[in-house]
Amino acid sequence: MASAFDAAALEIHKRLNGKITIQNKAECNSETLPLFYTPGVGAVSTYLAQHPEEAGEYSVVGNCVAVVSDGSAVLGLGNIGPYGALPVMEGKAMIFRSQAGIDSYPIVLNTQDPDLIVEIICAIAPSFGGINIEDISAPRCYEIERRVQDRLSMPVMHDDQHATAIVALCGLINAAKIKGKSVCDFKIAILGAGASASGVARLFAAFGNDNIVLVDSKGIVGKHRTDLDPNKQQLSLVTNHEGLTGGLDEAIKGADVIIGLASAGLVKPHHIKSMAKDPIVFALSNPTPEITPEEAIAAGAAIVGTGRSDYPNQINNALVFPGLFRGALDNRIPKITTDIKLRAAKALADLVENPSPTEIVPSVFNPKVVPAVAASVPTPLA
Amino acid sequence: MASAFDAAALEIHKRLNGKITIQNKAECNSETLPLFYTPGVGAVSTYLAQHPEEAGEYSVVGNCVAVVSDGSAVLGLGNIGPYGALPVMEGKAMIFRSQAGIDSYPIVLNTQDPDLIVEIICAIAPSFGGINIEDISAPRCYEIERRVQDRLSMPVMHDDQHATAIVALCGLINAAKIKGKSVCDFKIAILGAGASASGVARLFAAFGNDNIVLVDSKGIVGKHRTDLDPNKQQLSLVTNHEGLTGGLDEAIKGADVIIGLASAGLVKPHHIKSMAKDPIVFALSNPTPEITPEEAIAAGAAIVGTGRSDYPNQINNALVFPGLFRGALDNRIPKITTDIKLRAAKALADLVENPSPTEIVPSVFNPKVVPAVAASVPTPLA
Repeated sequence: MASAFDAAALEIHKRLNGKITIQNKAECNSETLPLFYTPGVGAVSTYLAQHPEEAGEYSVVGNCVAVVSDGSAVLGLGNIGPYGALPVMEGKAMIFRSQAGIDSYPIVLNTQDPDLIVEIICAIAPSFGGINIEDISAPRCYEIERRVQDRLSMPVMHDDQHATAIVALCGLINAAKIKGKSVCDFKIAILGAGASASGVARLFAAFGNDNIVLVDSKGIVGKHRTDLDPNKQQLSLVTNHEGLTGGLDEAIKGADVIIGLASAGLVKPHHIKSMAKDPIVFALSNPTPEITPEEAIAAGAAIVGTGRSDYPNQINNALVFPGLFRGALDNRIPKITTDIKLRAAKALADLVENPSPTEIVPSVFNPKVVPAVAASVPTPLA
Repeated sequence: MASAFDAAALEIHKRLNGKITIQNKAECNSETLPLFYTPGVGAVSTYLAQHPEEAGEYSVVGNCVAVVSDGSAVLGLGNIGPYGALPVMEGKAMIFRSQAGIDSYPIVLNTQDPDLIVEIICAIAPSFGGINIEDISAPRCYEIERRVQDRLSMPVMHDDQHATAIVALCGLINAAKIKGKSVCDFKIAILGAGASASGVARLFAAFGNDNIVLVDSKGIVGKHRTDLDPNKQQLSLVTNHEGLTGGLDEAIKGADVIIGLASAGLVKPHHIKSMAKDPIVFALSNPTPEITPEEAIAAGAAIVGTGRSDYPNQINNALVFPGLFRGALDNRIPKITTDIKLRAAKALADLVENPSPTEIVPSVFNPKVVPAVAASVPTPLA
């Protein structure tokens, strides 16, 4: 089955020679060319040299997002380089177009040096209106995103960190509604401490939850650990206020919520049984979750989410990035702030009118998703 | 008049928000998305990581050319930076699409450091199938083109150097036919020693002409000069075999051909009168030529070419770059060689069936131009 599906994916990519194409917005003929190119274009060049902040109105860049990857952490495939990353980034560009009417081009890099990547993104930035960083391995991704955003006055977002976090928070907001509680009431165990897990921990903490524990392959993240990289050291300051130690069992025991961002099959039924009553389990490892929804429910889970489209409650990044960049480009904001991310999660949650255990997030094909997320970006002051 | 035309150019750029758009090649819906994105795309990523040489067949890059500029020498406007360059590069992308069906995106750089530009182009190269370098100032452009081409197995062309040279050679081949001579018979004075002039000198020398003199603002280029940069030192080895000294007057006196790549109004009627009988004058400074065709003809010129579309014999780069990259992409060649450039000039010249003093180059809207130039790129060995 898998190989027939893989063959179909390979066949359609080869038949179409990729998924996106760059086309002209107007006829290019002997009448229009003198306006679009020399000599007429000279007036536009002169104007934009003097008014660079208006470049987006006179060129493609105002509606165009670069999807940038160095291929160091592609899907679950690992460090497969720029050509391995290319079809994923082009697919993302395709989703930007179909979901949000955004022009987008994949930029895959033949280097994995963080300093050079920062220089490259900053240097090519005038060619785009926003930068979607994608599938760059942790902990390099944190530094690259921060340094690039510090230098550019355009939105820069490492999707792996932030989009999963926003959709997971949306799901948890609705799960809390079902239970008549607040997300802040939950004791949350995050399995994994990579890019997505870090983003989830930070966004949940920003929402106001102060009862979060992360656990990586070496155990619970906390101030007792002496082997933490700078990112995990920072996480140890905003999570695990009880000073828990131990491993997976200790992290999960008594928790209301598991957010699995680790590896296939990591969670066993006895873990679910050790949680608080009617627990919430997001098993987001893809394509094989930490525990199947069937197993989780059999062990007592009340609400289950995965990254897959063939189960209810798909925690899908595509709910977030098209709308966030749509709003960011439309409003010409310089940065996607934490406040915007929190508003986006709430806006997504509000799209589910009657949350139920099998419907805590909207469908990615719901036409209200992009406008609602885009509206979470504030309009500039008049 | 100029300002009304400028206003029209500004208006249409602002109304359309630029000239190109990135679109999907297929519907992106719940049926196709699993093939184009996760999970299906994983098979394509895995395949291309193992077979990077096939990336062009499975993605947009096989048909896509980056138009790269640092904005240091844009049109006649000078060093106006990346946003100033942007409309020109986007216009070039538009011509790639309309003339040759090539996907193309403008990459304008917020740096003018040659080392960093080389690193950037080489790093982003997996995102494209070819690199058109544009409007980068001399002498930086020579080094950047050479170093990038040395490192990449895809066509890299600095258009300013090579496209003008190819069209000028095409025009001269047909001018020679009219006179019953060969290009190699002509004594040629090249006015200017910048990127275009350097390209013309080198291509004419490669064609076999050994009677070329260049003259820059300091005088005739030759071994006697002690102020030459490395590029002009190299030019002094392949030109001016007679060891001419002096300035503009000495360079032009007795010449059969002037190729003006210098500045508006530089050439006076007395210069034309000092040339050989029935001389050929290409006054390519744009928009105002070194001498107007009316003045040149009144002073005795037999054949006149300019860079303008409102006179006969337009020496237009757009005759070359779409077809050259079309052929290069179709045949997956690693480099556009001098031999290919010479063949392109001859192929263009052959498109003019009955050359006359007012028709020595084909029209840029002649549908045979792109196929003829593309055919000058050799097909790979079977």
